[in-house]
Amino acid sequence: MNNLMAVAEAIKKARRPLLCGHVMPDGDSLGSVLALGLGLRLLGKEVTIVSSDPIPDLYHFLPGVETVIVGKVPEGRYDLLVAVDCSVPERLGSALEAFVNNGLPVAVIDHHVNDQPFGHYNYVRAEAAATGEIIMDLLDLLQVPLNLDLAINLYTAIVTDTGSFRYENTTAETHARTARLLACGIPVSRLSNQIFGEQPLVSLRLLEVALGTLAVSHCGQIAWMSISREQIKSVGAGDQHIEGLINYPRKIKGVELAIVFRELDEQRVKVSFRSKYRVDVNLLAKKFGGGGHVRASGCTIEGRLEQVKELVLKEAKELFRGDSHGRHS
Amino acid sequence: MNNLMAVAEAIKKARRPLLCGHVMPDGDSLGSVLALGLGLRLLGKEVTIVSSDPIPDLYHFLPGVETVIVGKVPEGRYDLLVAVDCSVPERLGSALEAFVNNGLPVAVIDHHVNDQPFGHYNYVRAEAAATGEIIMDLLDLLQVPLNLDLAINLYTAIVTDTGSFRYENTTAETHARTARLLACGIPVSRLSNQIFGEQPLVSLRLLEVALGTLAVSHCGQIAWMSISREQIKSVGAGDQHIEGLINYPRKIKGVELAIVFRELDEQRVKVSFRSKYRVDVNLLAKKFGGGGHVRASGCTIEGRLEQVKELVLKEAKELFRGDSHGRHS
Repeated sequence: MNNLMAVAEAIKKARRPLLCGHVMPDGDSLGSVLALGLGLRLLGKEVTIVSSDPIPDLYHFLPGVETVIVGKVPEGRYDLLVAVDCSVPERLGSALEAFVNNGLPVAVIDHHVNDQPFGHYNYVRAEAAATGEIIMDLLDLLQVPLNLDLAINLYTAIVTDTGSFRYENTTAETHARTARLLACGIPVSRLSNQIFGEQPLVSLRLLEVALGTLAVSHCGQIAWMSISREQIKSVGAGDQHIEGLINYPRKIKGVELAIVFRELDEQRVKVSFRSKYRVDVNLLAKKFGGGGHVRASGCTIEGRLEQVKELVLKEAKELFRGDSHGRHS
Repeated sequence: MNNLMAVAEAIKKARRPLLCGHVMPDGDSLGSVLALGLGLRLLGKEVTIVSSDPIPDLYHFLPGVETVIVGKVPEGRYDLLVAVDCSVPERLGSALEAFVNNGLPVAVIDHHVNDQPFGHYNYVRAEAAATGEIIMDLLDLLQVPLNLDLAINLYTAIVTDTGSFRYENTTAETHARTARLLACGIPVSRLSNQIFGEQPLVSLRLLEVALGTLAVSHCGQIAWMSISREQIKSVGAGDQHIEGLINYPRKIKGVELAIVFRELDEQRVKVSFRSKYRVDVNLLAKKFGGGGHVRASGCTIEGRLEQVKELVLKEAKELFRGDSHGRHS
């Protein structure tokens, strides 16, 4: 049952909702959960927002971010868990996963392709550019009037998941919603600088190291980088510095499929995929137990870095067999 | 008289309009003039579009661009000159300037601040993010229905002049108009890639080498990179690959002044400066016989790479003396 109205009704009835996004929170996850949290507080609800992972510095400007509890769920009598931008319980992280299948009703609001969402109430709209778009509709249904704090969170959700309105997921509806958000008085250029403009020195150190591993396939259509734990440690980088790296192989002229391999530990590698026009990277990630979107996806694979690279690249190259001239089939 | 209706009326009456944008045409100038030109052709008018300067390769994808005549105005009995995105006649360029004050009625449509536009019919809206926004309103007035070719031109005008909706000029109206354009079927990610996205592999190879030289001053406010001829040669890069490099040190959190040193030959170094908020790099470059703008400037200095670095950094550090805590004074 894919019903935003049912989700809205469940939320309306809840008095002490527990809200959360996914591990390694990004702009859409945080902006969505905060907008929903602030909105529900305006309705007088006792809202608890929890993130399993710390909030990246980049997003410390988001209104309401100071109310997010990191790493554990405080004692309390919750009557609804609302999982935002999260397709599987595992993505909630260790602090929250236990709350699923624990008697607590669960509502899922998401935009990742997913046939079997894990909530009692589910709303998944894969065509939404960001979960923030759905939260905006939900707040409308709940008759929460937009204000600047809500708008900044929703704008951040949308602008980060659309790469500043450049990705394929951007629709007329995305711009129409953003028009409403800007009408609340969003300081566009200040937010853009905050979100896209600056980066810590360590990100550039990591970029240098990552570029040292950049390789392009014989056909010119696959580009990849791989980062070992040793390399991450050598420059003093953290999880939050890795996120944007995949844009570099993706940007290369003629490249259709970009991949970043990241060693999590000696036995696991996180693999991120991006495609430009035609490769369905959701399908590709699914082959390895992951998922995501058609143009952006990921998975975690057991094995050593070099083994995983070999395995994934073999599968990736299969996609371009008989297509060695860089033409779109 | 600032009247879009009057401009629309003048255009309605014209049968053989001559359309033009400004010299060194950019996305807004080209997108605007092409959208207007295609629109007026739909109304059955005999439209001539002229550009004094050549069209950059980047914009060769624009629908109708093949009908632009470059460098001269063909013989013809024109009945209206429409100057788009151009605040003074000199900006029309040598091929067109002579047509002003030559008996031909002139209509000016622009978004640059300007108290005295040069047309007989003028419409200047400084609050418009792009002239393309005004052209969209004008086409509405002229009852030209939007189609995909018009939309691609108008979208390009808007997306380039707003830096992908990130600059201060972006308004709710900008997004509302863009929503209408996307509804015509704009291939967002393909256009974004064409306009902003792609770079050759060699640019990333050069970036890696340049990042290897990245250094930050003790105070954290000056960051620089230096590129030797040997390094440029080692990756097979050319002049066109070097231009954007200065954005990397500029992006570092806390950095106010970014510098790139580039060895031209054994005796000369090109130095580029960028500042974020307060250092006047035009003054700084002038000390070394160069110049530019307050936030972007450059100079060429005689000497060996290491000598020039030492000289310039000494001068740069002087600017931050007594300000060692990274605070803006």
